[in-house]
Amino acid sequence: MELLTALKWRYATKKMNGQVVPQDKVEAILDAAYLAPTSSGLQPYEVIVVTNPILKEKIREVAYDQSQITDSSHLLVFAAWDTYTNKRINDIFLHTVTERGLPNDAMDDYKNRLIASYTSRSDQANFEHAARQAYIGFGLAIAAAAVLQVDATPMEGFDNAALDRLLNLEERGLKSVTLLPLGYRDESNDWLVNLKKVRKPKDQFITAIA
Amino acid sequence: MELLTALKWRYATKKMNGQVVPQDKVEAILDAAYLAPTSSGLQPYEVIVVTNPILKEKIREVAYDQSQITDSSHLLVFAAWDTYTNKRINDIFLHTVTERGLPNDAMDDYKNRLIASYTSRSDQANFEHAARQAYIGFGLAIAAAAVLQVDATPMEGFDNAALDRLLNLEERGLKSVTLLPLGYRDESNDWLVNLKKVRKPKDQFITAIA
Repeated sequence: MELLTALKWRYATKKMNGQVVPQDKVEAILDAAYLAPTSSGLQPYEVIVVTNPILKEKIREVAYDQSQITDSSHLLVFAAWDTYTNKRINDIFLHTVTERGLPNDAMDDYKNRLIASYTSRSDQANFEHAARQAYIGFGLAIAAAAVLQVDATPMEGFDNAALDRLLNLEERGLKSVTLLPLGYRDESNDWLVNLKKVRKPKDQFITAIA
Repeated sequence: MELLTALKWRYATKKMNGQVVPQDKVEAILDAAYLAPTSSGLQPYEVIVVTNPILKEKIREVAYDQSQITDSSHLLVFAAWDTYTNKRINDIFLHTVTERGLPNDAMDDYKNRLIASYTSRSDQANFEHAARQAYIGFGLAIAAAAVLQVDATPMEGFDNAALDRLLNLEERGLKSVTLLPLGYRDESNDWLVNLKKVRKPKDQFITAIA
């Protein structure tokens, strides 16, 4: 489906029917997030794909009992780096120069400025910055799902700390930021499916300065 | 262009050639951001479209002299609400119920919980939350540009406070978060165009829990 048509078709699905999203579509959705741009290419977040039914039940308990978590076939958890560290930045740059066939020190000036800047900020400021990058990928995953006519529900409403414990994210230096259950709408039981999609008047969203 | 193909095609264009992006494409890119989902549908950000050459020159001065700002034909500025207020939330909900043909108080329970929750948080926490929503729309604008084979450069590197002053954003309760110049790559003068697009190894980005 064409992108804008898909964005009009999609909605925050409130009731899913349990049908399984084919693996190739799940991979395409993950690829969209994987390919998303991030600040300085650091990709400071990860995506955890939960299909385990027992774990999904536990996550639902810390996410206001939202049924899409268990009625989706795949639950994506977007989790951002808790901070930027010297090692994390070095590892990414080493990978980048290696992939590009450049000398190991080819990007050192840029890298060292970045390390100096990021490691002098608070962990909280770094986490907020990493979280914003995760939202770009989150947006692209939402778009990719819509293009493939897979339903998805962008969710922020859950107990982040409790989810981090369930997924052992703290020991990996990650903090959950959003959930994206993937599945298919249950048209007859979804109160939102037939309500008009509303956006604020366009002139309150866009200003042109010519 | 198909979405994943487009995401592989795109890159953070470093040098643009001054060619003008047609208005219908600019509008499609803005529509993608406009249609992007946001938390509770509040759309807590705006997009300013700068085509004025003098203003673009001034913006370039507070954005590390990055040439794409003046070599783009349209510079999109994403600016998030500085906080959530009772009035802002009320206005959005009134618009939504009106558009849906519902009674004015149809969503009051949900709305009032949201107002109580958001207005008890700090302005900084609210701004950070609004900024994250802006990044979803920012991501979708980047995706839409790529699909239309319009080049774009996601940018965070600028003096936010100085840009806010240039655009009088503070008096509108907005704070700039990102820039997105739209234009066309200057292949012969862009050092990045022929370098391999690198992402970290996929197993460091995706974890499956089955």
